[in-house]
Amino acid sequence: SVDTTPIRATLFPGDGIGPEIAESVKKVFTEADVHIDWEEHYVGTEVDPRTQSFLTWESLESVRRNKIGLKGPMATPIGKGHRSLNLTLRKELNLYANVRPCYSLPGYKTRYDNVDLVTIRENTEGEYSGLEHQVVRGVVESLKIITRQASLRVAEYAFHYAKAHGRERVSAIHKANIMQKTDGLFLKVFLFLMIKYRLLDCKSMLPCINFGLVYLQCCREVAEKYPEIKYEEVVIDNCCMMLVKNPALFDVLVMPNLYGDIISDLCAGLIGGLGLTPSCNIGEGGIALAEAVHGSAPDIAGKNMANPTALLLSAVTMLRHLELHDKADRIQDAILKTIAEGKYRTADLGGSSTTTDFTKAICDHL
Amino acid sequence: SVDTTPIRATLFPGDGIGPEIAESVKKVFTEADVHIDWEEHYVGTEVDPRTQSFLTWESLESVRRNKIGLKGPMATPIGKGHRSLNLTLRKELNLYANVRPCYSLPGYKTRYDNVDLVTIRENTEGEYSGLEHQVVRGVVESLKIITRQASLRVAEYAFHYAKAHGRERVSAIHKANIMQKTDGLFLKVFLFLMIKYRLLDCKSMLPCINFGLVYLQCCREVAEKYPEIKYEEVVIDNCCMMLVKNPALFDVLVMPNLYGDIISDLCAGLIGGLGLTPSCNIGEGGIALAEAVHGSAPDIAGKNMANPTALLLSAVTMLRHLELHDKADRIQDAILKTIAEGKYRTADLGGSSTTTDFTKAICDHL
Ligand SMILES: CC(C)[C@H](C(=O)O)[C@@H](O)C(=O)O
Ligand SMILES: CC(C)[C@H](C(=O)O)[C@@H](O)C(=O)O
Repeated sequence: SVDTTPIRATLFPGDGIGPEIAESVKKVFTEADVHIDWEEHYVGTEVDPRTQSFLTWESLESVRRNKIGLKGPMATPIGKGHRSLNLTLRKELNLYANVRPCYSLPGYKTRYDNVDLVTIRENTEGEYSGLEHQVVRGVVESLKIITRQASLRVAEYAFHYAKAHGRERVSAIHKANIMQKTDGLFLKVFLFLMIKYRLLDCKSMLPCINFGLVYLQCCREVAEKYPEIKYEEVVIDNCCMMLVKNPALFDVLVMPNLYGDIISDLCAGLIGGLGLTPSCNIGEGGIALAEAVHGSAPDIAGKNMANPTALLLSAVTMLRHLELHDKADRIQDAILKTIAEGKYRTADLGGSSTTTDFTKAICDHL
Repeated sequence: SVDTTPIRATLFPGDGIGPEIAESVKKVFTEADVHIDWEEHYVGTEVDPRTQSFLTWESLESVRRNKIGLKGPMATPIGKGHRSLNLTLRKELNLYANVRPCYSLPGYKTRYDNVDLVTIRENTEGEYSGLEHQVVRGVVESLKIITRQASLRVAEYAFHYAKAHGRERVSAIHKANIMQKTDGLFLKVFLFLMIKYRLLDCKSMLPCINFGLVYLQCCREVAEKYPEIKYEEVVIDNCCMMLVKNPALFDVLVMPNLYGDIISDLCAGLIGGLGLTPSCNIGEGGIALAEAVHGSAPDIAGKNMANPTALLLSAVTMLRHLELHDKADRIQDAILKTIAEGKYRTADLGGSSTTTDFTKAICDHL
C-alpha cells in the first residue's frame, strides 16, 4: 500500500537538544509505520567537521529535491556578526509562509481554554530585508520592504489553507493606521509653512500613499475570491490586546513578517510556550519544511531531558502536507493523549520524565 | 497653600466620548480640591468651526507654555490620506517617551492577578518615521530610523523613572537577533560565490553592523549609571510569550516605538483593556501630556455610557508629574475603590452605570 512506500525527507536535527528530539520523531514514526527515508544533514552554529561549513549546498539541495523536510532548533547568536541560519534557510529556499497552528492541549492547563487558531506569517521580506546602514554616526536606518508579489502569495496561501482545513475566518493583521507619505521632504516644507501661518490642516497633507495598505490590498483581493470565508482586518496592537483578552475571537491570522514573529510567539504563550507548538514553512515549488521554533536549550542538551513535543507536532504537519492524514491523526492523538494523562511529562511541563520515557509513552499509545 | 494655587493645564477633550470623560475628570478634580485652570482646545478629526483647522498653532503653543496637559481620544482614519493627529502631536511637541503603568485593578477580575509593570516607549522614530515610497509598482519601502540621541534619551528616562518610582528592574526589549549588515549588495555577491563553490560559511559574511544593537547599546550605557537597578535584555517575540505566561517576570520595560505600541496594548489586555490604563507622554523641556489611549468610541458618544477610568488615571499621572502625590493618591484610591466595589460600573466592564453615576461614586469616595 502507499503507506509503506518510503518517502525521502530531509532532516536537519540542528543544535543543542535537536539530535535528541529528532531521535524521538524517528522512533514515533517507526512505531506508527510511517516509513521515511531520512536524508540527514547537519546545519547549525558549529562548523560541520566534514564540510568545514555552517550550511552546505548539499543541505539546501536536499530540501529542494525532496520538497519535504524537518528541522530542529538552530541557535542564533546576538550580535556575533553572522546572519541567522533560520533566516538564511528561509531566504535560500524561498520559504514564503510560516504556518503555526496553536491549540490548547487537553489536560495541560494554562490561563486559556479552547485556544484554536493558526498564524500564517509572511516569511521573506518586511523588516527582515537585512538592508540597512549607518547614515552618519549615531543614525542608522533599516529598510522594510513590502511587495505585492509576496503579499499576494502569502494571502493566497492563507485563504487556501483556511478552505482546506475547514476554517471560517481570516484576519489580516496590519498597522496601516500609521500614516505614510510618498515624500518626506515635501511634507516637512509643508508643515513649516503651515506652522508659520498658524494653521495645521492635515487634509492638505495629501497626496500620500499608505504603506500598510499594499499588504491589506492584496489580502482584500484574495478575500474576494473566497466569499465563503469571512474576512476582517485588525490593527496589530489591538490584535495583541484581543488575543490576551479572548483568543477565541480569532481563527486564521495572516500577517507580515515581524508581526508574525511576535504574534505567533504570543499565541504559543497562551497554550504553554514554544515547546508545544508545531510550525511548518511553505516554500515555492511545493516545498514544506516543518520546524520546531523553540531554542536549542544548550543547558539541557544531551541530558535526555528535552521535550520533543514541538518537533513531533511539526513532523505531524509534515505528514499532513503529504496528505497522510490518517497517520498524522494517529500520531497527533498519541502525543496529545500522553500529555493529557500527565503521567509522563518532561521537566519543562512540570514533570520528571526523560525524553526517551516520554517518547516510549507516545509509542505505547500508538 | 500650594494645593490651592490654580495650575494652568491644557485640555484636548478630543473626539467621540472625549468631551464626556473630560467632564468627569473636571468633576473629580474639583471634588478633590485640585485647582486646575484648564485651557481647553479642540483637536480632533472634525474641522474646528472657529479655526477651520484640525490642529491649530494655539493648541500646540498652549502645551508648550503650560508644559502640562491632558488629552482625550482622537480618531485615526485608516488610509484616508492624512497623518494621525496623535502622531502629529508627538512629533510637534517632541514627546519622546510614552509611559504606561499597567496594574491589576483590585476587584476587577481578569485571567491575571497582580500585574504591576510599566511600559516606556520611544515615541518619535523607528517605524514611525513616515519616510517611505514606492520603488516600482508593487514594491514599497519604508525607512525605520534609530538614532543614538533618541535611544539614549528614552533609556535615560526609563532608568530615571525606575529609580524615582522605586522600581527594581529595567528590561530593554529588542530584536537584535535579526542579523543586519552594512551592505546588502556586498553580501549578495558573496552568497553567490559561496553557493557556487558549494560552501556557505556565515562567519565570512563579516563585516556587518547590528541595527538593533544601537538601541541596546544606549540602554547598556545608561544601565551602567544605575547599578542599583537590575538590567536585562529580552527579544520582543520572547517577551510577548513571557508576558502572557507570567507578567510578574517584568517590572519596567523600555523599547523602540513599534514594539512599544504592540506591547503596551498587550499589557493593557492583561488587566482588562485600554479603557483602564493610564498613559503619559514626556516631552523635551519638561512637557508632560497625559492621554487616554483608547479609541473615541463614536458608537456610544454622547450617550453618557463611556468609561472615564483611563482618562482619570491619566490625569492622576499628570498630578504625579506635578509632584502632587497626595492628591494623586487620593484620587487614584477613590477610582480604584469605586471599581473594586463593583456597584457602579460602566457597560464596558459589565455594569450598567452611566458616566455621571460612576463619576459621582468616585466623588463620594473622596
Ligand atoms: C531566531 C529568529 C531570527 C527568528 C525570527 O525572528 O524569525 C525566530 O524568532 C523565529 O520566529 O523563527
Ligand atoms: C493611533 C495610532 C497611530 C497610535 C500608534 O500607533 O502609536 C496608537 O495605537 C497608540 O498607541 O497611541
